[in-house]
Amino acid sequence: MGLVVMKFGGSSVANAEKIKNVARRVIQTRDKGNRVVVVVSAPGDTTDDLITMAEGITPEPDPREMDMLLATGEQISIALLGMAIKDKGCKAISLTGAQVGILTDNTHSNAKVKHIPTDKIRKELKRGNIVIVAGFQGVTENEDITTLGRGGSDLTAVALASVLKADVCEIFTDVMGVYTTDPRVVPEARKLDTISYDEMLEMAGLGAQVMQARSIEVAKKFNIDIHVRSTFSEAEGTFITREVQKMEDVVVRGIASDKNQAKISIIDLPDKPGEAARMFKDLADKHINVDMIIQSSASDGRNDISFTVGHKDLSKTLEVMERIRRELGAKDVIHDSNVAKVSIVGVGMRSHVGVAAKMFSALAREGINIEMISTSEIKISCVIKNTQVDKAVKAIHRVFNLDKKK
Amino acid sequence: MGLVVMKFGGSSVANAEKIKNVARRVIQTRDKGNRVVVVVSAPGDTTDDLITMAEGITPEPDPREMDMLLATGEQISIALLGMAIKDKGCKAISLTGAQVGILTDNTHSNAKVKHIPTDKIRKELKRGNIVIVAGFQGVTENEDITTLGRGGSDLTAVALASVLKADVCEIFTDVMGVYTTDPRVVPEARKLDTISYDEMLEMAGLGAQVMQARSIEVAKKFNIDIHVRSTFSEAEGTFITREVQKMEDVVVRGIASDKNQAKISIIDLPDKPGEAARMFKDLADKHINVDMIIQSSASDGRNDISFTVGHKDLSKTLEVMERIRRELGAKDVIHDSNVAKVSIVGVGMRSHVGVAAKMFSALAREGINIEMISTSEIKISCVIKNTQVDKAVKAIHRVFNLDKKK
Repeated sequence: MGLVVMKFGGSSVANAEKIKNVARRVIQTRDKGNRVVVVVSAPGDTTDDLITMAEGITPEPDPREMDMLLATGEQISIALLGMAIKDKGCKAISLTGAQVGILTDNTHSNAKVKHIPTDKIRKELKRGNIVIVAGFQGVTENEDITTLGRGGSDLTAVALASVLKADVCEIFTDVMGVYTTDPRVVPEARKLDTISYDEMLEMAGLGAQVMQARSIEVAKKFNIDIHVRSTFSEAEGTFITREVQKMEDVVVRGIASDKNQAKISIIDLPDKPGEAARMFKDLADKHINVDMIIQSSASDGRNDISFTVGHKDLSKTLEVMERIRRELGAKDVIHDSNVAKVSIVGVGMRSHVGVAAKMFSALAREGINIEMISTSEIKISCVIKNTQVDKAVKAIHRVFNLDKKK
Repeated sequence: MGLVVMKFGGSSVANAEKIKNVARRVIQTRDKGNRVVVVVSAPGDTTDDLITMAEGITPEPDPREMDMLLATGEQISIALLGMAIKDKGCKAISLTGAQVGILTDNTHSNAKVKHIPTDKIRKELKRGNIVIVAGFQGVTENEDITTLGRGGSDLTAVALASVLKADVCEIFTDVMGVYTTDPRVVPEARKLDTISYDEMLEMAGLGAQVMQARSIEVAKKFNIDIHVRSTFSEAEGTFITREVQKMEDVVVRGIASDKNQAKISIIDLPDKPGEAARMFKDLADKHINVDMIIQSSASDGRNDISFTVGHKDLSKTLEVMERIRRELGAKDVIHDSNVAKVSIVGVGMRSHVGVAAKMFSALAREGINIEMISTSEIKISCVIKNTQVDKAVKAIHRVFNLDKKK
């Protein structure tokens, strides 16, 4: 008899039929002899609806009150799921973040979990209850309600799996698992049986939407096996786990692409120490998330710096850069919002040579020009024209034989 | 400097504009030098929407989960009102029933308040905050969320006013106060400046919709002055208070009518001891609320019993009565759903004679037949044909000079 944490996202509890389906899945898992803790997000568009309400009051809602408001979304889900499970004759109890006692700091809208007591949940499990916990929310020492920010319900699930020493944390979603790449782009894309935490972290960071990096970091830290699977199918999905020997035979696990990129270059920047640092500090102060950075040094004491940002930050970035150009006496700031990033990820890269070369040749054969390159131990990213992304992903998928099970 | 509890119902917080208006009213009261505690209901149709959601899951939702669900309605209101007040530059904090610590028994959906600690609210008031409390909800010793049933937000307000020893409890509504009778029926109906707890209790019980009897009972018990007034006007409304000398000059304070009545009669019931008792016990077991009862004894050992119930209970009542008729050997069960109740209320009746006679003559002059009569110390009710109710109310209003300020 095991202990399973099951997490269902907002689209899985968007209406009564879907909630009943979740109830069925949960009872199925319990009927296999498991103790079950369920974590749910707010139903469908509820969170967006609540945000719209708040914006009707003021464009800048007070953060404490915003969390008080948003927390109602998950509370609705746990209540409805509780009814659905009990209606099928099973014992269940719903608990808000505050009722569990999920203690966070007081950074409203993006709180960090500090401590999760397990006594309440263990007591209810011992009574034979399926325990339904509101995702995304916690409570400060002062009993103020907080929310955990993007991907918060995943985080609740992984953190609960950790403190309860669960056997597995199942993340239910509307896809079958983690794929070698986006199946909408490459029909041959293959569902992965396993992926390592590090690979999944890179994939998440690169725009694969299955899980937020933050939850995977927690799972990695506490060594929680995550099973990403479909709400609407019984089939096994993808296990996110520590590296295992078998994994190392695979060089490239998956391909991610991100069309939401813009490239900015500052031209002929006088090459004085500390000026690049100052530039990136100014951008960080404006909460602009800079991704890839390339500096091409020149021999005449001037150089060019290029970097990428998300589309939404482009205009803010150009404002900052124009000011910096004037202050530092650079020649020009140019930008290109028609770029994209394509990346390959795999722990096997560490011990295999020629992976980058193979990727670059594949792109060259398709006539795709690489504008920027960035690498980590288990990842290689290239910036290319965004009109060529799909062609690039297909070519790379083929050259690394990702359609074939290994 | 006083302490004021202000309560706003669902229609007062139904949308962003209305919530901002409530914020303005609250700040106005604070700016007069008062400490302010605000109690709000769920916005507009929110509670109905939540009930519809639950019914989508199951026709009989688990009561604990239903309370978990319904409590989100008031939580939405307090969060939005908190934002609105802070947006106007005032300090405020919203608190759920659980955060205040409103302790109830565990009768879900109709919980009784057992204890309200004041430390949290007093601390926040001392910090200069306007304290916004979710109405209608509490929490059990086991930390389960409960709701207080119909009129629950009024009850929260009155109970808070009591434990905080507030100077006044203001109940904001969409009418200007308590009227001598329904102004939609009698255009001459006059707003009352004051009404006693007992009179208001009778008016509430008789169908005047301003406040639930339950809250008035609490106000009476703890001697809380209630000020019923309009959300949309600065004018003073009606004070519900203890009897004062001046009040006793007034014989009839107001007239209430209730068209939602049906009369049931069981004919030729054998007159054996205990059978009437058994009949009303059977009705009570089915949660049927019996109102007026008249028994006409006959000399031949048989008699007729008539009583009234609300329309919604009629078919259930007839089922019970038909069974009883068979078991007890009565001749017939007849019913009339075209009846209504018209009542006059006033503490002055105690010391004035001829009040009933004056009412009956007024009805007789209009050709209105009285089918049943019931009296209390401060109330006289008559059952008449429901098509004649408006005419009856007008005639009684006139005969007691209720249109004239006394």
